[in-house]
Amino acid sequence: MSVTDIVAIAEQSALRINTLAVIGVGLIGGSFAAACRKAGIVSRVIGAGRKPETLAQAVGLGLIDEAVTLEEAALQADLIFIAAPVGAFESIFAALAPKLNARALITDGGSTKQNVVTAARAGLKDRIGQFVPAHPMAGSHEKGPQAADASLYTSKRVILTPLSENNAADVARIQAVWQACGAHVSSTTPAQHDGMVAAVSHLPHWLAALFMQHIVASPDAALKLQTAGTGFRDFTRVAQGSAEMWSDIFMANRDAMLGELKALRTVMDRAERALEASDESWLREMLEAAAKARSDWSGNQS
Amino acid sequence: MSVTDIVAIAEQSALRINTLAVIGVGLIGGSFAAACRKAGIVSRVIGAGRKPETLAQAVGLGLIDEAVTLEEAALQADLIFIAAPVGAFESIFAALAPKLNARALITDGGSTKQNVVTAARAGLKDRIGQFVPAHPMAGSHEKGPQAADASLYTSKRVILTPLSENNAADVARIQAVWQACGAHVSSTTPAQHDGMVAAVSHLPHWLAALFMQHIVASPDAALKLQTAGTGFRDFTRVAQGSAEMWSDIFMANRDAMLGELKALRTVMDRAERALEASDESWLREMLEAAAKARSDWSGNQS
Repeated sequence: MSVTDIVAIAEQSALRINTLAVIGVGLIGGSFAAACRKAGIVSRVIGAGRKPETLAQAVGLGLIDEAVTLEEAALQADLIFIAAPVGAFESIFAALAPKLNARALITDGGSTKQNVVTAARAGLKDRIGQFVPAHPMAGSHEKGPQAADASLYTSKRVILTPLSENNAADVARIQAVWQACGAHVSSTTPAQHDGMVAAVSHLPHWLAALFMQHIVASPDAALKLQTAGTGFRDFTRVAQGSAEMWSDIFMANRDAMLGELKALRTVMDRAERALEASDESWLREMLEAAAKARSDWSGNQS
Repeated sequence: MSVTDIVAIAEQSALRINTLAVIGVGLIGGSFAAACRKAGIVSRVIGAGRKPETLAQAVGLGLIDEAVTLEEAALQADLIFIAAPVGAFESIFAALAPKLNARALITDGGSTKQNVVTAARAGLKDRIGQFVPAHPMAGSHEKGPQAADASLYTSKRVILTPLSENNAADVARIQAVWQACGAHVSSTTPAQHDGMVAAVSHLPHWLAALFMQHIVASPDAALKLQTAGTGFRDFTRVAQGSAEMWSDIFMANRDAMLGELKALRTVMDRAERALEASDESWLREMLEAAAKARSDWSGNQS
């Protein structure tokens, strides 16, 4: 047996999941289950969650094989994926901890990471090393198990924020699982992650929602909406997302968001003064830089 | 011959354009020419513009039959469509006026209307009644004759801002031509038009461009751009538009834009205070209202 063969077998066995437990079987959790199945790396999928009817739906759709309790998930799974509202994480970690299989790993799909890590430390206590935090940068304004899609993570970015307590081999295993789901994986610290997503994900949602509010609150809102075209359509698309999920996100990432809003205000004030002063050359330069940055962006074609 | 037949023939002859002149044969002008040809309502298309190579390209693409001067366009055309930068309108109107065919109508594709009407009154003088201002709410970040598309206006809105000097039959004729190009036509005043587009078109562009500037000016811009996903992509798409065209638009619609920015700032300040105060219920209510307004929007499916 060659060295290459040994490495290949080792990689394959590292990837192999006997029992995957998904906590929260909606869009994010259901898609993870479907992607792992499609990649052929999982034997059995069990699911837990708040609503029995959602779990039954996930069984019906073939996303999970069986609905279980959190305790059963902790006992049976060798990989646990948490895709619940971030506010519920601490109690989920606390329910999993006492029964957690010593070789099991936990990862998650939470949109913020510093607060998830805090919840994990509080809930998991000395099992914290078994948790490798992750954030898949993929989503949809659709919700629930019926929206789950085995290719949701294909070519999407997943950011890991490994902890000092993590074993490097465990981090590598979580990375390999996400790669098997088709994702591009990178790593950073929880704090840098939260700052980055505040800027490129949470701030656009904030602005699109407030812009929408500004339009509908105006006296001639109906006429304006009738006039709106494709630019309006693209700019406001994110504002359709779940209000429950997004208010959670803004609260969880409050400090980073307030920092972003303050910095953006400086840019907006400067531009407004240029417009007031009819400083056309400043405006054109700014618009050219913005257009170039957007055209140069590597995600432009996706 | 039935009354219906007579009406049909009258409508058809009202629609018939012997010679269409397009001033500015890029995306907007070229698409108008192509759409009129596709509708079968025009016999001959002539084009005028600043750059001989652009006109030659438009001839080569079959968008226009011949490149002419503004004077020749005024003499020969029974319909003139102006699709030039708004800053050039007054000199175009002044060049057309002395030779303008008494039965010719002029319409335009300018993104703002109060300044276009001012330019038309100054340039056309007592021929002002022959100009029916229009704004097709369609576009692309692509430019030039090669981007022209016969279906650019299909199912898009065109806003007419008729003048007190216009003859009602002439306004109806311009409306019918746009409808033949596939557009949905409505009418309003120039001032209301400018307020509406400041809100639903110019403000999104302003915010998307400044947001893009804010991102690229930050120290970890490269990492942020690597992290950005589909929400970022949609939200910033409009920022790719022509800096020349958009600085023109912002300058032309300066007062309405400053009014919009002031009103938006009130909404943004209120939301920032709610976030600072961790007022989650206020945030959730705002996000729900925004998501509902966006989902209810009739343009949602387009």
